[in-house]
Amino acid sequence: MPAAGRGERLGGGTPKALRALGGKPMLVRSIEALRRSESVTQIVVAAPPTLVEVVAQLLGRDVRVIAGGAERVDSVRRALRAIDDDISVVLVHDAARPLTPPSLVDAVAAAVLAGHPAVIPVLGLTDTVKEVGPDGRVIRTPPRDRLRAVQTPQGFRRDVLAAAYALQDIPATDDAGLVEALGVPVTTIPGAQEAFKVTQPPDLVLAEALLARCAPGDARAAGDPRAGTDPRGGADVRAGSDARSLG
Amino acid sequence: MPAAGRGERLGGGTPKALRALGGKPMLVRSIEALRRSESVTQIVVAAPPTLVEVVAQLLGRDVRVIAGGAERVDSVRRALRAIDDDISVVLVHDAARPLTPPSLVDAVAAAVLAGHPAVIPVLGLTDTVKEVGPDGRVIRTPPRDRLRAVQTPQGFRRDVLAAAYALQDIPATDDAGLVEALGVPVTTIPGAQEAFKVTQPPDLVLAEALLARCAPGDARAAGDPRAGTDPRGGADVRAGSDARSLG
Repeated sequence: MPAAGRGERLGGGTPKALRALGGKPMLVRSIEALRRSESVTQIVVAAPPTLVEVVAQLLGRDVRVIAGGAERVDSVRRALRAIDDDISVVLVHDAARPLTPPSLVDAVAAAVLAGHPAVIPVLGLTDTVKEVGPDGRVIRTPPRDRLRAVQTPQGFRRDVLAAAYALQDIPATDDAGLVEALGVPVTTIPGAQEAFKVTQPPDLVLAEALLARCAPGDARAAGDPRAGTDPRGGADVRAGSDARSLG
Repeated sequence: MPAAGRGERLGGGTPKALRALGGKPMLVRSIEALRRSESVTQIVVAAPPTLVEVVAQLLGRDVRVIAGGAERVDSVRRALRAIDDDISVVLVHDAARPLTPPSLVDAVAAAVLAGHPAVIPVLGLTDTVKEVGPDGRVIRTPPRDRLRAVQTPQGFRRDVLAAAYALQDIPATDDAGLVEALGVPVTTIPGAQEAFKVTQPPDLVLAEALLARCAPGDARAAGDPRAGTDPRGGADVRAGSDARSLG
């Protein structure tokens, strides 16, 4: 998890992943979702170098916390090297999606294990989307029914993701974008509304409101801190937020 | 306003525009935002034919309520014909954006009055967007920094919008899409986070939470029912939600 994002859009001056949400840092909530997933056997978090100790204490012993890099890609590369050798499926997750349901994590992992080399959870779009030029003029309206908003975790065969990260200077706003540059097919599965990304202040308001309504489920999450040793799955899960994507 | 949407995604069985939000129908809140705008001189709402009387009573005398058509385009065409002759700028608004700030309405109208034939409020995208094929495979990732999510109200020179609606069978998910088909340039201006569209149940949760936090502003809205006779602007505002876009 490159949890090194600063969250300028959120304001407040706290590193984004450590912002409290319903009394707990967003990062802790994201990790809880991963712990509750049946597919996850190891969790690696890339933290800002100055916060590695703090984050490690916060998350507990079943999470491996490493120092992230300057850019998101650097953090993911480092985290990939920190994964146990016997793991064949890697999930990359945003620390800024604190309400991601464990079932979504499982669905992504299951699709990779079923043979899809790259799997992303997606939702249809509510708003029409336009492509604009540098002057703000509309260039075209891509057909909305063919567009999907991409969430995380994104799941990959480990060799595919490693090959994608061996590429240099590919501009991509998500990991699947790198894999696409390899020519590897990327499969979509249905995402989850609750897995929305917390980027703007209204996102925090929504997350707080949803947590207030779902207190029982939340308590269950807190009471079920799965250690990263479930033998059933083959997925490593890393929760990543990115200073670039927040700036 | 084609407020004929049924809101299948929201559940609950009430026509979407009439769903309560902080104790008031969503439609009433959308109209309040328009009434508070300084640019709006006439408001026309296209309601489901069976609900014209109810909606008219709900909205009050300063709103003209007409019977909408089977499709969104039909409703907008009818509403266009119901606008006073001396109005030269038309805004089209979603009834499902109940927290739209009046300042956004004014900004769109001002940009049209400043000479732009078509103006849409937009926001950058939080999620990466993919274009997918019929099989759910990713075809490409359009560069996110060139994509914008489109909100409403969308503003048009009246003659331009009338010409766009004279076109037949143009597939478009927003009014600007029709105008683009004419070859008329569409200008973007900054949108507002609060102007999000209420489509899914979490959107209702967010809207309720934001209303609870902003009670004073809301009271002000309720206490300021501007009649549609402000001489300063030239804009007619129609709030439209669409059964198609909800299905």
